[in-house]
Amino acid sequence: MRLMRIGEPGHERPVLAATDGTRHYDLRGVTADIDGAFLAELTRDPSVVPDPSALPETGIEGERIGAPVARPSAVLCIGQNYAAHAAESGAEPPEWPILFYKSPNTVVGPYDEVFIPRGSRTTDWEVELAVVIGRRARYLEGPEDALAHIAGYTIANDVSERTYQREESGGQWSKGKSCETFNPLGPVLVTPDEVPDPQDLALRSWVNGEPRQDSNTSDMIFSVAHLVHHLSQYLVLEPGDVINTGTPQGVAMSGRFPYLAAGDVMELEIAGLGRQRSPLRAAPSS
Amino acid sequence: MRLMRIGEPGHERPVLAATDGTRHYDLRGVTADIDGAFLAELTRDPSVVPDPSALPETGIEGERIGAPVARPSAVLCIGQNYAAHAAESGAEPPEWPILFYKSPNTVVGPYDEVFIPRGSRTTDWEVELAVVIGRRARYLEGPEDALAHIAGYTIANDVSERTYQREESGGQWSKGKSCETFNPLGPVLVTPDEVPDPQDLALRSWVNGEPRQDSNTSDMIFSVAHLVHHLSQYLVLEPGDVINTGTPQGVAMSGRFPYLAAGDVMELEIAGLGRQRSPLRAAPSS
Repeated sequence: MRLMRIGEPGHERPVLAATDGTRHYDLRGVTADIDGAFLAELTRDPSVVPDPSALPETGIEGERIGAPVARPSAVLCIGQNYAAHAAESGAEPPEWPILFYKSPNTVVGPYDEVFIPRGSRTTDWEVELAVVIGRRARYLEGPEDALAHIAGYTIANDVSERTYQREESGGQWSKGKSCETFNPLGPVLVTPDEVPDPQDLALRSWVNGEPRQDSNTSDMIFSVAHLVHHLSQYLVLEPGDVINTGTPQGVAMSGRFPYLAAGDVMELEIAGLGRQRSPLRAAPSS
Repeated sequence: MRLMRIGEPGHERPVLAATDGTRHYDLRGVTADIDGAFLAELTRDPSVVPDPSALPETGIEGERIGAPVARPSAVLCIGQNYAAHAAESGAEPPEWPILFYKSPNTVVGPYDEVFIPRGSRTTDWEVELAVVIGRRARYLEGPEDALAHIAGYTIANDVSERTYQREESGGQWSKGKSCETFNPLGPVLVTPDEVPDPQDLALRSWVNGEPRQDSNTSDMIFSVAHLVHHLSQYLVLEPGDVINTGTPQGVAMSGRFPYLAAGDVMELEIAGLGRQRSPLRAAPSS
């Protein structure tokens, strides 16, 4: 099942997309929005969404695509979860999953503009597999219980301002992670039945059409199941929470590529989850 | 103006408390809840809350007191904002405000139980002045603009698990800050007209009646106005966001006091903002 939110910011309507992407169905008769409450219901009983033949078809041509989850209650991020990215960041692979948060108000749609903060010279991209929680997860018994708590998967760009993250931060990364528009999410939330192995997904990014990141979720140090189980030993994950599971090598911080500037375009792709395209512009005056 | 939320978790009703605490007035005719939308309205126009003489009186005796803000969109925390606390943590006073987040689902009422996480031996208290945002703050011109963006002040306990925060974290603190129940908040949200100087508030904590922290917000390295202005240069603060402004010296991590155990009771007080009382218990099995 492929879920989308279509319409202007704050006024998105829930839509079911056919797997081949050619047809779309209106879900407003099923739920007012794709939010934590609906994802909990869907994870408990996928039949709450009827067969497309029972749903009205809808057109989305020319409309804005929103993030596929209404503003999450929390956006959790895992740092340095690919060994080669840890190395390009000047760090050893971590012994424990590294957790930080970004403000949920950073989430924007997968084709929305991303703002370069005022005076920033070190804005960077990060393609990541995003996991959306569908069932409350607290002290899970083991990683084998984790996947049943996932409502679906999508693409996140964990946009990062490296000077804010590393030099003006006292060592805590969130200041460089929570700038306005810094979490493009989407375009679709794909339910686990269509993602047979979350540890075998090619993920790539481009800037202005030139390749940057090119890896596979098989290179994660801590798997999705490991992360959800691990986090549940420390905190309570709730339906609608988003976990950005870390980014592979190939970001600007490596020194191999220039940082982002107004006018650039980021593109991100994960196999089976679609593609994002985010134009950069200077943060507007209001 | 002193705002409260009274009732069982998820079913609190909004209440106005008389300044002397002896009488309470039902605000359900004014707003369904004390949330970001209501706080934005109140900050724009305090007269949305009529004079108590025009409100029905209500009793709260024997009822639970909830956190005075419905689940915030974000809980921002400032680290090491008191020089003597930085020193007892083994750190130099920071050059920049240190920002991290805790999950908003950590917020509980000011008399609710706080859970010692499974296996934890290093759960610690932190009394903090909490600032609640009432007006969207983005690229403020200067600290002098900051206070007009504040809806009110209350008490936060930034409960912390030091092993999770410092040893199982890869250096990012959020894992030790986001455990279930780790942010008692309240009892009252006091509007700025009743807090003439947020930099002159005595704040104290006790464990089992014995004194622990005893300081004053005048000892903050970065003032409330400085923090709100500074954060607005990096991210967008929204009505309902909570900022925990840092804790003074006198926590268990200093080595001067034992860590918390089930059966202990934390008490926290800030002059003019009231008092919390949080009993500790082992995290329940479900």
